[in-house]
Amino acid sequence: MPGRCAAKALLGIFAFCPVLSSSVGMKIGIIEHIDSAHFLPGHPKCGSNHGHTYKVELIMEGEVRNGMVMDFGDLKSCLKSVLAEFDHRSWNDFLEYPSVENICHLLHQRLRNQLTSPFSLRVWEGEGKWAEH
Amino acid sequence: MPGRCAAKALLGIFAFCPVLSSSVGMKIGIIEHIDSAHFLPGHPKCGSNHGHTYKVELIMEGEVRNGMVMDFGDLKSCLKSVLAEFDHRSWNDFLEYPSVENICHLLHQRLRNQLTSPFSLRVWEGEGKWAEH
Amino acid sequence: MPGRCAAKALLGIFAFCPVLSSSVGMKIGIIEHIDSAHFLPGHPKCGSNHGHTYKVELIMEGEVRNGMVMDFGDLKSCLKSVLAEFDHRSWNDFLEYPSVENICHLLHQRLRNQLTSPFSLRVWEGEGKWAEH
Repeated sequence: MPGRCAAKALLGIFAFCPVLSSSVGMKIGIIEHIDSAHFLPGHPKCGSNHGHTYKVELIMEGEVRNGMVMDFGDLKSCLKSVLAEFDHRSWNDFLEYPSVENICHLLHQRLRNQLTSPFSLRVWEGEGKWAEH
Repeated sequence: MPGRCAAKALLGIFAFCPVLSSSVGMKIGIIEHIDSAHFLPGHPKCGSNHGHTYKVELIMEGEVRNGMVMDFGDLKSCLKSVLAEFDHRSWNDFLEYPSVENICHLLHQRLRNQLTSPFSLRVWEGEGKWAEH
Repeated sequence: MPGRCAAKALLGIFAFCPVLSSSVGMKIGIIEHIDSAHFLPGHPKCGSNHGHTYKVELIMEGEVRNGMVMDFGDLKSCLKSVLAEFDHRSWNDFLEYPSVENICHLLHQRLRNQLTSPFSLRVWEGEGKWAEH
């Protein structure tokens, strides 16, 4: 019944079509995964080469325009293109000390070149451990 | 041994019963799911009718009184009553452009009529994609 | 190829080694679980003795030093040592009214004695219900 909805909007009855004309600030988030190796030189537990499934959550804040802060498809493409460089690779090829904090910072820097709206990044190293920047 | 605990409270030994008399600000959250159809008119990927399991997380902030910000049962009843209208329906019957941002805004408006404390709403469209208002 | 990376850092090419020298504020989080019994005296639904798997997320904010806000291992040891007292026990042995808000507050107090950086605690009572302090 979009027709009915549109008619009500024309009549100013916004209770049923509340978001057609407003500009509202919102957060959106997307999640991607990559699988990479790493080791932390000199660390008692993490010093040997191993790996994790890294869950990466990108959170963006912005105004809703034409019903979206940003198209999920575009945002996912952007994140995927940054992550592709590190998927099925070793973080130690890119960072001297690839703690999840340093990984998060590295990814944040790469994304900063591509995104104009404010965003934060939460990187999960396996289950139950994450860093956010 | 609630008796032992109460006795200590009377003696002013709050280390074991720390929350009996204090008023503390906290956040609480509850999650519900509904299954609904939608399509985004004119969108290259989402233009055909399809559907998602929507996860809806309601986050409320308030003072802890009598051990609770709000009874989870009451908060869940409130959220369920709002969601019932949209479960196993098409969002396109209610919104011209049912992006998850617009869905989130619509649900936020409905809840605003029922809740007096500040709250936010995070709506997940399937896995790994959400909007928060 | 950490050697290549280090060489570039020496040359001031930080694009590939962006986090070696910076001091950045970040959040980190860890998650642990315990299984405990509780009942809420006089509550219509929760008045009988039952139990939950409690998921406890500890979120700490701080500066990244030597690649970490805090070693996950140390933070997990700290949280585990606090939780051990309550695992496979009844919260009613410790609290008169063990709502998840009061449980969260109790755990927060115990951790406050051990952690010097600001932190928050989110306690999940089973699925889809949590309190954060």
